[in-house]
Amino acid sequence: PQSKLPALGTTIFTQMSALAQQHQAINLSQGFPDFDGPDYLKARLAHHVAHGANQYAPMTGALPLRAAIADKTERLYGWRPDPDLEVTVTAGATEALFAAISALVRSGDEVICFDPSYDSYAPAVTLAGGVTRRIALTPPAFRVDWTAFGAQLNDRTRLVILNTPHNPSATVWQDEDFVQLWQAIAEREIYVLSDEVYEHICFAAGGHASVLTHPELRQRAIAVSSFGKTYHMTGWKVGYCVAPAALSAEVRKIHQYLTFSVNTPAQLALADMLRDEPGHWQQLPDFYRGRRDHLVQALAPSRLELLPCEGTYFLLADYSAISDMEDVAFCRWLTVNVGVAAIPLSVFCAEPFPHKLIRLCFAKQDVTLDAAAERLCQL
Amino acid sequence: PQSKLPALGTTIFTQMSALAQQHQAINLSQGFPDFDGPDYLKARLAHHVAHGANQYAPMTGALPLRAAIADKTERLYGWRPDPDLEVTVTAGATEALFAAISALVRSGDEVICFDPSYDSYAPAVTLAGGVTRRIALTPPAFRVDWTAFGAQLNDRTRLVILNTPHNPSATVWQDEDFVQLWQAIAEREIYVLSDEVYEHICFAAGGHASVLTHPELRQRAIAVSSFGKTYHMTGWKVGYCVAPAALSAEVRKIHQYLTFSVNTPAQLALADMLRDEPGHWQQLPDFYRGRRDHLVQALAPSRLELLPCEGTYFLLADYSAISDMEDVAFCRWLTVNVGVAAIPLSVFCAEPFPHKLIRLCFAKQDVTLDAAAERLCQL
Ligand SMILES: CSCCC(=O)C(=O)O
Ligand SMILES: CSCCC(=O)C(=O)O
Repeated sequence: PQSKLPALGTTIFTQMSALAQQHQAINLSQGFPDFDGPDYLKARLAHHVAHGANQYAPMTGALPLRAAIADKTERLYGWRPDPDLEVTVTAGATEALFAAISALVRSGDEVICFDPSYDSYAPAVTLAGGVTRRIALTPPAFRVDWTAFGAQLNDRTRLVILNTPHNPSATVWQDEDFVQLWQAIAEREIYVLSDEVYEHICFAAGGHASVLTHPELRQRAIAVSSFGKTYHMTGWKVGYCVAPAALSAEVRKIHQYLTFSVNTPAQLALADMLRDEPGHWQQLPDFYRGRRDHLVQALAPSRLELLPCEGTYFLLADYSAISDMEDVAFCRWLTVNVGVAAIPLSVFCAEPFPHKLIRLCFAKQDVTLDAAAERLCQL
Repeated sequence: PQSKLPALGTTIFTQMSALAQQHQAINLSQGFPDFDGPDYLKARLAHHVAHGANQYAPMTGALPLRAAIADKTERLYGWRPDPDLEVTVTAGATEALFAAISALVRSGDEVICFDPSYDSYAPAVTLAGGVTRRIALTPPAFRVDWTAFGAQLNDRTRLVILNTPHNPSATVWQDEDFVQLWQAIAEREIYVLSDEVYEHICFAAGGHASVLTHPELRQRAIAVSSFGKTYHMTGWKVGYCVAPAALSAEVRKIHQYLTFSVNTPAQLALADMLRDEPGHWQQLPDFYRGRRDHLVQALAPSRLELLPCEGTYFLLADYSAISDMEDVAFCRWLTVNVGVAAIPLSVFCAEPFPHKLIRLCFAKQDVTLDAAAERLCQL
């Protein structure tokens, strides 16, 4: 059949993880921890499976989980969404993003994406018949140029997709960015999709700035998060979105035919974890600051130039002092010949990205980070 | 925002289960068992969670599960798909159906659906910009009229969506139906989406006829199944599809941005179960024949007229001797006033359905079926 997504192959994450495995390279490419999640969470999953919580969860999500998400949102962002009408549990953040885009974007609509940005947004826009408009973010600060942003808006602009803490740049939005965003879109019917899956992995002085703290913006926003990064369980695939009732209703219409519902025992275990051990996410910034600093120190003797990292579990490194190769070729070479897999930044970009940057995942044990750094320091 | 699916509300399954709970009715509406899955499966899940299998599975599915699916397919249908290229694990059959429709249907394409049919197909076609053409199936036999079918095909026809054993009619396709289907579409570029989630719950003399047994048809077909019904675990949400490499590649392009991957420990536990206890699905037809016959006997004294049931865990009953109400109203009345929740057949239809039929789920323990039957026998 003719392809609906002709330009797309397998994601870089799948490609690099496969290449890493093939060459037994240390895998700092695809973002996942090489350590395990909390014992309590695992014990609660075993409990719910053993006690018969194995049938369909409600389409919108198990109520205890939706309530726990609402409580957490209130503690963090000072506003409690209604669990019945404003919180929807999805098969990972990926499904929430896809459902939100499918619900909002019609044929011919324009969608603002930043460049670089996470690779799942644009294909979902394409499938919905929309057109992606890119706003370039430039290293090392990757800040939004709000004048350029305003100039991209027009009557067809329907949605802005943002991500903070930002994968892959490891930068974060400040409150001021949200103020600028609101000023730019207030007079138009433009919605906001805010991917905040790294909300608990933020090292910025002011902490994570969420779209949900802004009373006007959150009337137009779908905020997406998940538990994979927060609980070191990327394979559990439970995410969610928070949005005003009218927007949630449209997302749910899509979700109910996309996956209908999400793994029941995992939802109940996560609800228990959120309720009983809030300390876990509260200490997560410190935990990951430790991981980041460990890698930064271990790479200090290398010829890589490290960029600031304010959030996510990714560290960017400029390798211009080491090689002239373009970044995709360099990452393949690094995996095959040096034994360290990383992600090239250009794969997150639609426009040419003339920088020599790679992304290293530091959600790894000391021993893994040290072994990778030892190899990288020899370059 | 303007709705992309304006005509749609919450699915009937969610509505009826909620109404049943509110009125403490016996819930024979939404299809799920009120008993639990195999202990071995649950133990294997706990094992994999405890042993650190909690990070992203490969995008296409955990290899042991894809291999086990290929083995099972060979045993059942005499042909082994390539686990690497032809088997894809999804977040339940629902995601497989949505991804397949998204991959194949373009704006303006026509899609053949039967009437009645499962409620998730048409919204997915609408979101892809396609148009659904319905072929009526008429009770009690619900057989396809192949002349009417042929008359619906034209140059815009892109996909045929079939379902056997068929929810809600509880009828099954015979080999002859697949022969007719192939004759009708062979000369055109039309694909087939075959929803076979009840493949192991089939009581027909010849057993389940799968699209995968037909060498020509399977070159054009995406066959979808899942584990929820087979292992009495509808809440685990692991499904899959089998399709030729070129079709699988297109489905995977969508899947990788829809959910990316599926719950890892559940996949590994299901792989263990398929490999170590094939006896489970082999005895499933007998097990469910027992459930069906139990309900049929318990309802014998009632004024319901029961239709033949060749597959699925649903039994249709004609209530014309009891009431003149149309079926949706009758089901609400039944839930609120009689304390038994059932699904009205007309909700599966796009065209007017002038029959008085309700669907009763018999994936229930004796005590549940007996209690429901006792109430129904008083009407
Ligand atoms: C869904 S696999 C990709 C994981 C991830 O978020 C990343 O590596 O950026
Ligand atoms: C996904 S909820 C619906 C369950 C089901 O397949 C049915 O009741 O028909």
